Amino acid sequence: MDFVTGSCEAKDMEIAELMQAEDNAVVKTHGMIYSIKNMGDFGFVTLRKKDGLVQCVFNKDQSHFALEDLGVEMSVQAEGTLKKDERAPGGFEIHLLDVNVLTKPKQAPAINLSKRKLSMSLETNIAQRPITLRNNRERAVFKIQEGMIRGFREYFIKNGFTEINTPKIVANGAEGGANIFKLDYFGKKAYLAQSPQFYKQMLVGVFEKVFEISHVFRAEKHNTARHLNEYMGIDMEMGFIDSFVDLMEVETGALKYTMELLKKEYAREIKILNIPIPEIDKIPSVRFKDAKEMIAKEYNRKIKDPYDLEPEEEQLISKLFAEKYNSEFVFVTHYPVKKRPFYAMDDPEDSKYTLSFDLLFRGMEITTGGQRIDDYDTQVEKMKSKGLDPADFESYLMIHKHGMPPHGGWGIGLERLCMKLMNESNVRAAAMFPRDMSRLEP
Amino acid sequence: MDFVTGSCEAKDMEIAELMQAEDNAVVKTHGMIYSIKNMGDFGFVTLRKKDGLVQCVFNKDQSHFALEDLGVEMSVQAEGTLKKDERAPGGFEIHLLDVNVLTKPKQAPAINLSKRKLSMSLETNIAQRPITLRNNRERAVFKIQEGMIRGFREYFIKNGFTEINTPKIVANGAEGGANIFKLDYFGKKAYLAQSPQFYKQMLVGVFEKVFEISHVFRAEKHNTARHLNEYMGIDMEMGFIDSFVDLMEVETGALKYTMELLKKEYAREIKILNIPIPEIDKIPSVRFKDAKEMIAKEYNRKIKDPYDLEPEEEQLISKLFAEKYNSEFVFVTHYPVKKRPFYAMDDPEDSKYTLSFDLLFRGMEITTGGQRIDDYDTQVEKMKSKGLDPADFESYLMIHKHGMPPHGGWGIGLERLCMKLMNESNVRAAAMFPRDMSRLEP
Repeated sequence: MDFVTGSCEAKDMEIAELMQAEDNAVVKTHGMIYSIKNMGDFGFVTLRKKDGLVQCVFNKDQSHFALEDLGVEMSVQAEGTLKKDERAPGGFEIHLLDVNVLTKPKQAPAINLSKRKLSMSLETNIAQRPITLRNNRERAVFKIQEGMIRGFREYFIKNGFTEINTPKIVANGAEGGANIFKLDYFGKKAYLAQSPQFYKQMLVGVFEKVFEISHVFRAEKHNTARHLNEYMGIDMEMGFIDSFVDLMEVETGALKYTMELLKKEYAREIKILNIPIPEIDKIPSVRFKDAKEMIAKEYNRKIKDPYDLEPEEEQLISKLFAEKYNSEFVFVTHYPVKKRPFYAMDDPEDSKYTLSFDLLFRGMEITTGGQRIDDYDTQVEKMKSKGLDPADFESYLMIHKHGMPPHGGWGIGLERLCMKLMNESNVRAAAMFPRDMSRLEP
Repeated sequence: MDFVTGSCEAKDMEIAELMQAEDNAVVKTHGMIYSIKNMGDFGFVTLRKKDGLVQCVFNKDQSHFALEDLGVEMSVQAEGTLKKDERAPGGFEIHLLDVNVLTKPKQAPAINLSKRKLSMSLETNIAQRPITLRNNRERAVFKIQEGMIRGFREYFIKNGFTEINTPKIVANGAEGGANIFKLDYFGKKAYLAQSPQFYKQMLVGVFEKVFEISHVFRAEKHNTARHLNEYMGIDMEMGFIDSFVDLMEVETGALKYTMELLKKEYAREIKILNIPIPEIDKIPSVRFKDAKEMIAKEYNRKIKDPYDLEPEEEQLISKLFAEKYNSEFVFVTHYPVKKRPFYAMDDPEDSKYTLSFDLLFRGMEITTGGQRIDDYDTQVEKMKSKGLDPADFESYLMIHKHGMPPHGGWGIGLERLCMKLMNESNVRAAAMFPRDMSRLEP
């Protein structure tokens, strides 16, 4: 009988170990060949490993193989002598003795993957993402994205939140409207979740503080640089809040934590991308109405839509607050009832407004949040006033009927936050396999 | 101007702090009222907090409120004197001075939520999940489930895996067949991902070792105790494997790590549920063909289906290996080509079989995994032999064409693993909001 013991010791060395190895040690490692420079008797072979590139040196006198036998995107095991070298990435290079080819591509990629930055349109890049992601810079974008999710998750867990995973096939849309994907569910009509809103509220009654990091589906017919039809939402919801300011405190804390994590654990990728990570000390907060008036005055604009912010207004608010308060983030609070969903709580001091907020980052809205209605009668009335039938929301209304603490939450669009962090102008650059009106593949 | 600084200090005390407080300290906390025992001048009020229950004592002489004014599922802030008491949960109780009611339910739940175990059918329970999850035992199930996901994730991260999130709206099914949900995507036909198979393989070429914990959608028309139409899949895929045994090593390591994490950090929930957490030392591994023959002989059975395991055979294999090798887990390896998907690698020593495995736990398959085809021509040929058109898989085949290391992976169905861990007989008991042929709500 064979037994599996769960030993996961790597047989080959990873970059962290190679960096610790002694000068002149004979080492074994593996990787995919990223680039080859053949200069006759001498040459360079760069390996792509799981956490970076390793520079190897071919020397006809010492290497027991022919450089001509190697090609890019081959998977190899390599043995060689480690030489400390300040100029090489990671401070070392490997002088190759032997190379064992494990697999060969049918055909080398048509594009040079090892360029510092791929020179192609975003369209072409996305169409070939299974391959273009192998480029060191492209890969770094999504490694940073992993770090962003890790940051939020770690912060939530440290602060007593329970992670939840709620269904994505649902009977009702949480955000209403036509922006919802429909599917046939064994003969019944079903939808793809536009947000985990109902479920995260339900689970506040169970775990008090919850978060979910998952897929959000919006059938929006906007083929713009800031819209995706499927994206990752970082959602939280918590009970026993004193006011919605508590929610902004958690968001500020989570952003601070995440930026620090990136600086600490993703320094390699930050360097590859050469992006400034924002310093967050405190985030200014301004009322929607005041923000509108401030930029109207400052930039001599007319207020066209009194109920919502136009994209240009978001940019101007960010600009103004960056100049005045040296902050790349700004909270805009107290949005009009008219533009907020049916579960938003009205401001008791002025029922035209809600106890809600958006967070703007470098000119773009990345978060919507606020306090929710917890009282049953108030929620039923609000549904009716918005033209909804409470009977359609029976399981959601159970929690209002049987008791909910004062609560609220927010959601961040991961790709938008990532796009702004990368100073990219199209959200697709921050989505591995973007879904938009014309794109279902790869 | 207001500023948000990101301070998330709790204003009220949580259970961990209360357990550290001095005897006779005056403390403030909050929670939802779980139960009330009114004995006239004296009584008990149990609060449900985010991580457990807190017992409070009402005493007419000391408490400045009327017990009659309180009701279950009210959200309250409470102030009282902490008294150490070995018999109370957590080793203390709070002798109430004041209670401030924050919110009241419209109506108390019709069921007694504070029972040790809810006495109702699973059907009734699920229909009222937004409320029944508030029961201490029900809640514990899903707290454990959170811990299971944490265990796998932490293990993967410690072992150099990159976390990925791949699209759930896709152009092709990875597992083929009719068990796939269709949707209209802006006039085009699209599907819900049956697994992240294609994407996780693509990303092995980028990050070498990847994992994804996310939603899996299967339109299976099986309304059985072990099928869900939406579930959480824990998926991994890694490159540079020597053989598929490496994959079983990672799975064994991850299971060991997860069980230890549960014992350490979820002891309270394990106690509430009174479940034995399996001790994993080493997991036996047996060939599919041998396993079939062993149980045919041992239990005097005829082999009906030589290509797959019947549910009863899975149970008997588990039984036999539990008795013989004292293991609740058993790997079954080398499944027939006929029953494995088109990306499975054939066994070079016998092309009727594949380099693949399932993991059985307490009589049920919880994992499918194996080595994948990495060679382009071999993959194209295999697709054709399975009646598939390679032209439909162009973006997937890019990775085979342009080079892939030897690689493989596996997927675990979270709810099945959780169901077996809980010794439940229906997978719906381990799904917060199950989706099956007749259920879309809550």
